[in-house]
Amino acid sequence: MEEAESLNAVLTQFNKISGNKILVHGGGRAATNIANRLGIQTQMVEGRRITDEAMLEVVIMVYGGLLNKRIVANLQARGCNAIGLTGADLDLIRSVKRPVKEIDYGYVGDVEEVNSSDLRVLIEENAVPIIAPLTHDGKGNLLNTNADTIASEIAIELSNYYSVYLFYCFEKKGVLNDPNNENSLIYDLDSVLFQKYQQEGIISGGMIPKLETGFRAKKNGVKEVLITNPENIATGRGTRLI
Amino acid sequence: MEEAESLNAVLTQFNKISGNKILVHGGGRAATNIANRLGIQTQMVEGRRITDEAMLEVVIMVYGGLLNKRIVANLQARGCNAIGLTGADLDLIRSVKRPVKEIDYGYVGDVEEVNSSDLRVLIEENAVPIIAPLTHDGKGNLLNTNADTIASEIAIELSNYYSVYLFYCFEKKGVLNDPNNENSLIYDLDSVLFQKYQQEGIISGGMIPKLETGFRAKKNGVKEVLITNPENIATGRGTRLI
Repeated sequence: MEEAESLNAVLTQFNKISGNKILVHGGGRAATNIANRLGIQTQMVEGRRITDEAMLEVVIMVYGGLLNKRIVANLQARGCNAIGLTGADLDLIRSVKRPVKEIDYGYVGDVEEVNSSDLRVLIEENAVPIIAPLTHDGKGNLLNTNADTIASEIAIELSNYYSVYLFYCFEKKGVLNDPNNENSLIYDLDSVLFQKYQQEGIISGGMIPKLETGFRAKKNGVKEVLITNPENIATGRGTRLI
Repeated sequence: MEEAESLNAVLTQFNKISGNKILVHGGGRAATNIANRLGIQTQMVEGRRITDEAMLEVVIMVYGGLLNKRIVANLQARGCNAIGLTGADLDLIRSVKRPVKEIDYGYVGDVEEVNSSDLRVLIEENAVPIIAPLTHDGKGNLLNTNADTIASEIAIELSNYYSVYLFYCFEKKGVLNDPNNENSLIYDLDSVLFQKYQQEGIISGGMIPKLETGFRAKKNGVKEVLITNPENIATGRGTRLI
């Protein structure tokens, strides 16, 4: 999402999806880049960004402003009626600041509640919500929130009203048996196999929380969950959670 | 709008306004501040920001992200169902890049068209749009656009459907006969008097484009145009354009 060329490629695929749709984006690399330029150091713990006050300002600017609005303008040029949102807009996603245990993640939000009533009004108007990974605590504070979690929670909430398909898109074809071999795609993955692969180290790193939120969605009403690359959304190829 | 304390004071007043409402905000000082921190120089010509590519990135981040989303989160905490928008969202405001004449303003947009159909859906849902001074050209580009112009053009468009009151808020009580004397408030101002005061130098600087957009609104269906400070919105005190 963070370089003009690859952004364009992703949005070309996204624009081809028929029916109502929502895009949830990240932006960690762009945030790190702007933070660097501002002399703010990026600190990650297990793939999660430590978000102090200065970093919170950066992610509000980069996720809520720079990336979100560029995606909106790009899609509008394609005739897709995009609208950029954070979890604060229309009180869409309430979260609580993550409690400090071994690690103080700072201004990071754990999702508490998705309020889709106004979101559904927009969807019914054929608007296309573009959601930045920010939520709010209802007390005036924005919180940095994991994009995979947001996608999963919104999908779960909307599955009360619609048939929801949830696609996690990244640079690979799906979950691979061997990360260096694109032909080792795992076609179907259930939670038993997921546990096994985790223990064997076949699935590791950032893929674990992604799959956890995916399985949570699958168990809570979402019709289909697919881990894939943007080019394969249309074909439905990728790793299907079952 | 740019410091926590004064932002809070303004939003307290804004929140008191009954009926449907929209807030259009600026953010020049915050943009200059972030630009400085990024080592980007701010260049102004007659109060207008020269917006090269680097500065465009800054205003998208600061107007569309930092300030807009902080206002939204602040209002949501007050039970006001705010939603942040730029002119790109929902194709709200189309503009054209200002033609280069003596001065190349860069990525600055002159408003061409306001499309209020989805905006009115949000208003009917009692959502409160918070609009950042950014528009788009329909070709994928965001453009930096004067907030007073945006307020005026939206007010004009909405006056086709509603009784619209347009308030320009700043730190003074209204247009003053003597800028150093708050008791020299001009209560009523018509366009003849405006011309005269301009020639006499009583009205000058940034107040001129503000009043020009205000008179344009007044002539095009907006019910009342008031130049005032936030504290006086409720009382209706300030300079009324007639």
